[in-house]
Amino acid sequence: MEQVVNIGLLGLGTVGGGVYKVLRNNPAVNIVKIAVKDKNEVQEIDGLDKNLLTEDAKVIVTNPDIDIIIEVIGGTGAAYEFIKMALERGKHVVTANKELIAKRGDELFEIAKQNNVLLLFEAAVGGGIPIIMPMKMSLAANKFEKIAGILNGTTNYILTKMDEDNADYEVVLKEAQELGYAEADPTGDVLGYDAAYKIAILASIAFKKKIDQSQIYREGIDTLSPIEFKYAEDFGYKIKLIALAQSVGNKLDVRVHPMLVSKTHPLAHINNVTNSVVMQAQPVNQVMFTGPGAGEMPTASSVCADVLSIVSEIHTTNFLLPEMRCNNTEKADILPIDETENKYFIRIDATDTPGVIGSIGNICSKFGINLNYIIQKDVTKDGMATIVILTGMCKEKDLITALNELSNLSSINTIHKLIRVMEL
Amino acid sequence: MEQVVNIGLLGLGTVGGGVYKVLRNNPAVNIVKIAVKDKNEVQEIDGLDKNLLTEDAKVIVTNPDIDIIIEVIGGTGAAYEFIKMALERGKHVVTANKELIAKRGDELFEIAKQNNVLLLFEAAVGGGIPIIMPMKMSLAANKFEKIAGILNGTTNYILTKMDEDNADYEVVLKEAQELGYAEADPTGDVLGYDAAYKIAILASIAFKKKIDQSQIYREGIDTLSPIEFKYAEDFGYKIKLIALAQSVGNKLDVRVHPMLVSKTHPLAHINNVTNSVVMQAQPVNQVMFTGPGAGEMPTASSVCADVLSIVSEIHTTNFLLPEMRCNNTEKADILPIDETENKYFIRIDATDTPGVIGSIGNICSKFGINLNYIIQKDVTKDGMATIVILTGMCKEKDLITALNELSNLSSINTIHKLIRVMEL
Repeated sequence: MEQVVNIGLLGLGTVGGGVYKVLRNNPAVNIVKIAVKDKNEVQEIDGLDKNLLTEDAKVIVTNPDIDIIIEVIGGTGAAYEFIKMALERGKHVVTANKELIAKRGDELFEIAKQNNVLLLFEAAVGGGIPIIMPMKMSLAANKFEKIAGILNGTTNYILTKMDEDNADYEVVLKEAQELGYAEADPTGDVLGYDAAYKIAILASIAFKKKIDQSQIYREGIDTLSPIEFKYAEDFGYKIKLIALAQSVGNKLDVRVHPMLVSKTHPLAHINNVTNSVVMQAQPVNQVMFTGPGAGEMPTASSVCADVLSIVSEIHTTNFLLPEMRCNNTEKADILPIDETENKYFIRIDATDTPGVIGSIGNICSKFGINLNYIIQKDVTKDGMATIVILTGMCKEKDLITALNELSNLSSINTIHKLIRVMEL
Repeated sequence: MEQVVNIGLLGLGTVGGGVYKVLRNNPAVNIVKIAVKDKNEVQEIDGLDKNLLTEDAKVIVTNPDIDIIIEVIGGTGAAYEFIKMALERGKHVVTANKELIAKRGDELFEIAKQNNVLLLFEAAVGGGIPIIMPMKMSLAANKFEKIAGILNGTTNYILTKMDEDNADYEVVLKEAQELGYAEADPTGDVLGYDAAYKIAILASIAFKKKIDQSQIYREGIDTLSPIEFKYAEDFGYKIKLIALAQSVGNKLDVRVHPMLVSKTHPLAHINNVTNSVVMQAQPVNQVMFTGPGAGEMPTASSVCADVLSIVSEIHTTNFLLPEMRCNNTEKADILPIDETENKYFIRIDATDTPGVIGSIGNICSKFGINLNYIIQKDVTKDGMATIVILTGMCKEKDLITALNELSNLSSINTIHKLIRVMEL
């Protein structure tokens, strides 16, 4: 660290503000310029030097004195253009932009490689939790088998409250919006888009393949009801929105949907806005990283870690953090959801007549589906019963076929949405 | 990675065997020689090339062709001499030796610095869990406030079983020994020595000070009884052996002892031999790393990660992983245990007479100790009652004074060993 490294900051929103506060007192770096959309609509930051502000980001990415660009604008439009421009000019780039890395990362990593610079993105997955560098460096000797994570704080908050308060989704969502834990338009979070970007990134690192994130199967949390949390609890499970990536033969099984997680695993006890990711790999077996998945200061922690990693090695010759490069050549073959294998939790409304449980068992058995539990729950006055099933491991398309046949039985009233069960 | 890096392996026990199995198929490295105590008493490893074995470790550490020495002998005798010798000859060293790093690390890091080589030790704390590199690199922008960990698998296994089975310490220890989870002489684990080495290492990294590990206050798990787990559960806590390090003013509070951990924190749900460490730091706030704290293959994962980190940067000029060096100059001032502040769980046997609870409250209040809970539990036929107390935050020496005065009351029969309460 013979000389101060010059930084250009693109964006001064929530994360940008945090980055500025952390880096401005670090003697190893010098924030030369900050790009904002509108100089007159900048957030109040104590001691912010207004002379650093510019509305012209291009001036920053083309400034030959700047060594590292930090991109915290978000989105895939201007952010993409500026990162590309910076890399092409031989500048290292640090970003927190999960959508961009998930959608166009491969292209940008290639440009970074051609220009012998780094594009780091620790903050793009799990906010303040160290994940990318531990995967790439601390677990460098491992072969990854499975990654399962709670990667979205908004949905984990909603699920925690639905469970604790026995409350409906819509009610808790509104509460989360009032508390600032959910956005006015919560689509990106509650339908699993955000988690899908993140698991696409982790899968590409773990399995060293290009991931077409549009192929990732996604279900949100909006169809869950409080009674499911109660029944899951009876079986010893919590319900979590899980982002999953695992190697199955020569394909990758990558998806985001609610899952039952056994209370014997620490992942079931990750509550509120906390994020956590479990990595199954050999020889390490299973490690888990937990912490704040979002927020101004935690996210700034990861952005600044990337910056300091570059700073501490920027004057080395030859290889600069070679382990941190992401240049995958092969495209992953993504397993379609109906080809995946899972255990399933199924809730059925049926008439409380003799033989119903037997019929369900027979039909499942016909399609090779073992039932680990089949339990009759609450019977109502009008003779309706709730039957809850936990299946053994089976192929999803076989289960769907069995459920279709089941739905034709006169004693079966409603088969509710299935929930898959996490194996950890 | 232009050329293969030559490795010398010192020790072929549990960890050494794992390291050999992981590295022998890695094209970036070449295991040149393996030092063992007795060639005729080497463990069976499929495909082990017996020509690699030598009983003379000195030949390895003085071999000019060897770039990296892996030390997995253990202890502070020969291991120290060989590491010193290797560093002085300009070789990088990777070790899993927590006792040596805790006791003589400062000295060895200084020798490494003088010879411009690295001494890495990821496996020394938390076995396969990435901890050291995430702390030093991923959390580089943070100021650490507190570290609290379950850092010993043997004791966590025993505590988990005592809790689950309502079983006595001696019974579970015997069972753990039969299962191979505890050694024949379990002293190093159950009395907290092992955890004390590990927290000494983590504290020195977090707070950038030299730690005299002999000053670390230590209590084992051997005095715990199953009834304490039950009462703790009633208050919403689990009991864990916690290794703690926190900054208090200009002193460091570093200690190992059983603590009550709230079930609302994921740390309470870390069971059996799993290890976990929580780090409180700014700006990240709180992150947690969980995984296998010991074992052949997990520990090999960390040893090999260190090796591969060196390999990938061994040909850079100037700085080789500068962030991973540990050269503290200042000695930490360790806070004595009676000066620490905690909440406390106290179990008292008293006569079931009116006024006992009032007297306890009055005496505590006299010494400025608030009681968050004071509850009378089981009353026996002979008129004895168990009273369980959870205090507010107070200085340990004030509590000891209050308990001494309490013990003089005729209605108080026994004041059991206090258990401190974790604040997370």
